[in-house]
Formats: sequence, structure tokens, C-alpha cells
Amino acid sequence: MAVNFPSIDPEQLYPVAGVTLGWAEANIRKPNRKDVLVMSIEEGATVAGVFTTNRFCAAPVTVCRKHLAKGNGIRALVVNTGNANAGTGEPGLAHARETCAEFARLAGIAPEQVLPFSTGVILEPLPIDRLKAGLPVALSNLRAAHWYEAAHSIMTTDTQPKAASRQVSIEGHSVTLTGISKGAGMIKPNMATMLGFLAFDAAVAQPVLDALVKEVADRSFNCITIDGDTSTNDSFILIASGKSSLPPITSTTTPAYAELRNAVVEVAQTLAQLIVRDGEGATKFITVRVEGGTSVAECRQIAYAIGHSPLVKTAFYASDPNLGRILAAIGYAGVTDLDVAKIDLYLDDVHVAKAGGRHPEYREEDGQRVMKQSEITIRVLLGRGSADATVWTCDLSHEYVSINADYRS
Amino acid sequence: MAVNFPSIDPEQLYPVAGVTLGWAEANIRKPNRKDVLVMSIEEGATVAGVFTTNRFCAAPVTVCRKHLAKGNGIRALVVNTGNANAGTGEPGLAHARETCAEFARLAGIAPEQVLPFSTGVILEPLPIDRLKAGLPVALSNLRAAHWYEAAHSIMTTDTQPKAASRQVSIEGHSVTLTGISKGAGMIKPNMATMLGFLAFDAAVAQPVLDALVKEVADRSFNCITIDGDTSTNDSFILIASGKSSLPPITSTTTPAYAELRNAVVEVAQTLAQLIVRDGEGATKFITVRVEGGTSVAECRQIAYAIGHSPLVKTAFYASDPNLGRILAAIGYAGVTDLDVAKIDLYLDDVHVAKAGGRHPEYREEDGQRVMKQSEITIRVLLGRGSADATVWTCDLSHEYVSINADYRS
Repeated sequence: MAVNFPSIDPEQLYPVAGVTLGWAEANIRKPNRKDVLVMSIEEGATVAGVFTTNRFCAAPVTVCRKHLAKGNGIRALVVNTGNANAGTGEPGLAHARETCAEFARLAGIAPEQVLPFSTGVILEPLPIDRLKAGLPVALSNLRAAHWYEAAHSIMTTDTQPKAASRQVSIEGHSVTLTGISKGAGMIKPNMATMLGFLAFDAAVAQPVLDALVKEVADRSFNCITIDGDTSTNDSFILIASGKSSLPPITSTTTPAYAELRNAVVEVAQTLAQLIVRDGEGATKFITVRVEGGTSVAECRQIAYAIGHSPLVKTAFYASDPNLGRILAAIGYAGVTDLDVAKIDLYLDDVHVAKAGGRHPEYREEDGQRVMKQSEITIRVLLGRGSADATVWTCDLSHEYVSINADYRS
Repeated sequence: MAVNFPSIDPEQLYPVAGVTLGWAEANIRKPNRKDVLVMSIEEGATVAGVFTTNRFCAAPVTVCRKHLAKGNGIRALVVNTGNANAGTGEPGLAHARETCAEFARLAGIAPEQVLPFSTGVILEPLPIDRLKAGLPVALSNLRAAHWYEAAHSIMTTDTQPKAASRQVSIEGHSVTLTGISKGAGMIKPNMATMLGFLAFDAAVAQPVLDALVKEVADRSFNCITIDGDTSTNDSFILIASGKSSLPPITSTTTPAYAELRNAVVEVAQTLAQLIVRDGEGATKFITVRVEGGTSVAECRQIAYAIGHSPLVKTAFYASDPNLGRILAAIGYAGVTDLDVAKIDLYLDDVHVAKAGGRHPEYREEDGQRVMKQSEITIRVLLGRGSADATVWTCDLSHEYVSINADYRS
């Protein structure tokens, strides 16, 4: 049921020099599916990540944070699906560490140079022996051209593999960026999405990359929501392989940084939006744009209140212009000094509410026309400042309930 | 699909001396249904209310606040269903005022002695002429015994009328309490529920009643959630008719106050829980109890995160013990210094998680057994203090989506 999901041409996913990818069918939860991914990174790259703010973060997230803090030299990412290794306590941490140690042994690197990732069911022990058995298989098929297969191998309830790629020229040097993501439910990233990996070949100094990954996450994965459930395993990783001829970027204040950032944001936004387009049970892709606020934070707060409201989401599913539900969500978003008499509401080009009430010329047929579309923009004007924020979300359908009532069976 | 909804015996809804109720079929939205209720209150009563915190509060809520602030002498409540008179701007306010004026004219009282209430669709003009035409009809059938019909006349998507009644003895004097409520969706009261009216015959001084209504709301209607959507029209009203022989209660520190409060809380909790039991599409009644917190606020925050999670709610619908979703919700609830290694999780008597991980003796069959019940208690022990909080909620089913996709049609 993905919404206007673009068909992804494997040929258009450009290899990123310095990065190879391999996969295995390790039978983590179900047989005959790619469920282990290895991303191998040549020496000299920098790697940065942002992770879930969920206090029940998964064991691999804890290990990732530790390994990234060690000063880097990250050489590989190991990802499994089918099991989140979250809510697994001390044994879970031991499993995450064992994953790194085993891969390090096979690849001849140090365990601290490996970042582990897991996604799937929470509160169940990771089948560590099956995972370990898959690692040599994944190692044996490492290829720079495996991005499409890699996107496949991290899917859980996703119906579509998610990938995006770009080539840009920065100061006359070609830079290639390719990324993959996964996720369709438990999506309300707060620092990053379920899983997103984005590599490019420009060289970026570690502190600059650390800043970049936050900036990009805030403008892409941190702007989406499907069901408001922040996952235990959200992780978004940037890999700067350094193989481009572009001179290393060592400051966030140069034009080259800005150009790279814009390219990375574009790829990351595409990856984030693909997650919403493939949202569990989604039939509509909805952009919620809140303008005229006193801060980005309050605009986001209101945009998320709209994006999370089950009543708004079901109305969109039904193409029912029951748009008072949007006003109700704006009103309970928690902006306590909001003057509703200043608020305007648009649905695409249709002016629905003016100065806090129904626009005198608003006709329900016009609202209905927009509601029937598969891509809809809700625009809220607060009339109290100059800040704005955008959130991408989807509707709430019978299918969402079916998927999540049956996920494990 | 209401969950273990008790059959309400009209004979067990005790009249409250000093209060009469009448209704009309005014064709507000649909023909042939009771959609206007009048509650008439004899002179000498005190009345207090709490209302929605939604900034887009409905016009009648604004008028209610104003009339209550005028120093009271409230003599009537006028309620319509089918239209919320919210998001209606200045014309909506005029309609709410006109409702009061018209009723006051008919009843020979002042407009400021009337409190108006509306519930139904947002963003549509109130059909004021039809409402006004219904008022003489409602006036003509005022009876002290009409509580059951009154509960019927305020229903919208409710499948069941909601009412509760008690007689208690306080210091040897009989006190009668009867209340009605409505609501099944857009339920996450924040100060009060969609609509709740509770009358008793004890005399209570105005400042004491003002304190009592807040205390009762916090322990009843403010502890429920169906879909996390705080309505624009939430209102909870206490009427103290003063007809009981119990001497007037003029302080919140007397034993008589405590006895009355406990009785009111009990009736209000029943009314609040009836709303959850009749929650849109509900198949399970779920009590979320969070203990061992440093404050009631953080316990409520975590209880609400669990109660709002679509993933938790769909798992309960499916009777699927995918209980890691509860841990995820605890983790993202926003208690930033939460130490998950101290958390225990129970499902009724089954110890699911211990010290932040799966309990070694937890067996999925045991979780499954509890999940299949229609009444389930989720108990979370935070292990960091002595505060606790309870929230009542329901599951999320296909039927919820159907109801809300079709509500207006």
C-alpha cells in the first residue's frame, strides 16, 4: 500500500568509493530472507551517528555509542533484522559485543572498529549463533555495487526497499552520496530513524561530521512520524569515506560544507520520506507545515500534534474533510499562550479556516477534492512570528491495525 | 463492542432533590434522536466546573467560564449534541449566548444563570434555530426521574448511555449523588472529559465546590484516554443542590468533606471508566498503573505514553504478548533520567520484565493468557520513589478506524 513510492532503479544507486556491502540469509527470525547486512569501510574514513532518545535503547545502540566515542577508526557496520536486541538487559549487551568481536576476528580488525545494529521484535533474546554463522557469508559477498541488496536486507515490516543516491559537484570535484533506510512502524524518530545509513566519498573531519549528522537528522529523519512511537533502535549513520578528490572539509563555516550539507540533506530527506510513503497501512502522504510561530520548537510541537492525532489520520484515510479535528489538535498541542483567533488553516490551496473560524467562502466540496488526493499539504499559519517547521506523515488505516495486530505471527 | 459495560438500571439512578431533567428531539444533526438536554437547578444550589485546556476551546466553554465567574446562581444547563460549536469564531460565541438568552426568557431567569454545552462535529455552524425550537419541548418534560433519558440525550458516537448513582450516609445524613457522562472518541481529557454532569443534594460552599471539582476530575476523568485527542469541548460540572439535611460543607479539611469527596470520586470514576469501556472500537479495558516514581507527574507521563501507543494498543487488540512495545513506550515517555535497569513490568500477576530485561522465568504462554482477557492491568515499577498514578484506557481495533473514518457520514 506504499503511497506514490518511486520505483528504485538499482543502476541509479551509485557505488561510494571506499564502501562495500554484503549480506546473508541467517535465519534470524524467518527462513529465506536477507536478514544480515555488513557494510565494510576502508581505512581513513570518518563515521558519525545519532541514536534514539528512548531510555530503553537497544543493546547495540549502547555499544555503537561506546565504539564511536573511542575516537573512531570505524571499519564496519553489522546489521541484523528480525530481532531488536532491546529490553534484553546484560545478556543483550554481551550479544552485541560478541557480534563485534566475531566480525572483527573474521575481518582482522579490532572489535571497537565495528558498529552493531539490530531491528525487529523487542524483549526476545538475539539468536547470536545464527547471526555469527551468517557473518562469513556476508563477508564473502562484499561489493561496492550491493546498495540495492543492502536496502533489501534491512527490511522488516517494510514493503519496499528504501534507497537514494546523488552525484554532485562541489568546487569542481565530483562527490557521490548513497544511502539506505528502513522502517514503517514505531516511527517517530527523535534523533534519527529506525535505521538509516548514508555514505559519501568526500573527506570530512570528525568534529565536522559529528555536527553534520545532527544537522541532517534534524532536517530529515527527525521530521517524520507514522505512529508517534519512538523506537528503541533508531540509528542514523553518516560515513565519509574520503575517496573523492574534494579537499577534506574541516569546518562547518565553508561554502563546501554548505554544499555537501545540502546534498546530504536532500538524500536523507528522500530516505526519510520513503519511510513515510511505506508507512504501515499508509494510503496518503501528508505534509504538515506550520508557519508564523515564535520558535521552530512550537511549530514542530503543533505539526506533530496534527501528525499524531488518530482522529486527523483516520479522517484523511476516509477522505472526509472533517477538518475541525485539525483545529482541535492545534489547540491541544501544548502551546499555552496560543491565540486561536489569529490562526489560518489551508488544505493545499483551499483556505479552510480564517482567524480561528471557518472561512466564510470555504465549501466542503473544495476540502473534499483535496482530501481525495494521495499527496496533501496541511498548512497552518499561527500569525505570531517568523519560525516554521515541516513534518511528513501518513494516514491511519484498517491496514495499520491489521499489520500491528499480526506483526509477530 | 463496549467492554464489560454494566447494564444500567434506570430505577437505580436516584433522583437528586433540587434537580430536574428534560429533553427534546431538535433535529440538530439527525432526525429522531434526543439531542437537546436541559438540567434545571432549584435556587440555592452551588455549581462548579472544569473545562478543556484545548486552546481551540468551543464557544459554549468560553461562555460557561464567564457565567460561572459571575458569582453563580446558576439555574440551568443546556446541552446539545450533533454540533460542537467549536472552531466557529465570533458567530459561534453569539450562538452560545443566544442559547442562554432564549432559555432564560422561557424560564424566567437571567441569561448568566444558564450554562451552555455542545458536543459533536467541529467547524460547522450551530443550527441555532432548531436548537431554540427544542428548548420549550425540553422545558415541558422536566422531571427529577429523567436521568436515564438525560444520559441518552447527550450521546454522540457512544453506543451506551453512561450514568452512575449512589446514596451514602455522611454524619448520619443521607446524601444522594447521580451523574451522567458521554464520550467515546477524542478522549484524553485534560481538566475534564467530553461531558460529565454530576449532581448531589449536599450543600457545599462555592470555594469548597471549586476545589472539589478539580480534585475529583484529577482522580477520575483526567485519568482516562482513548485516542490521546483532547477535545475542544471537555466539561465536567458538579451541582450541589443543597437539599440534603447534611449541614453545609464550608471547608475542605473536615471529615464530612472527605466523605463527600470519596463518594463523588467513586461516582466520577465510574462515569469516566464507562467512557473507556465504550471507547470507540474498544475490545479490552486496560488499567495502566505506574508505581515507584519520584512524582505523580512522571508516573502519569509514563502511564499515558503506554496508554497512547498505537503499537501497544494494537498488540492488546490482537492478544499478542509483544510486550517489548510497552518497554519502548516507557523509554520514550520523556523521563530523561530514567534508569531502565531498575524497571519491572507485570501483566496482571505475570512478571514479564525484571531489572529492565525479560524475566528469566517469563513464559510467553503466561503473557498470552492475560492478553486474552477483556480486563487487563499493566503494572510498571520504576524503583525510584514512592509516587504512583493510574490511567484507564482501551485497545485500538479495526472498528476504531471504521468509526472515525465514517463518523460524519
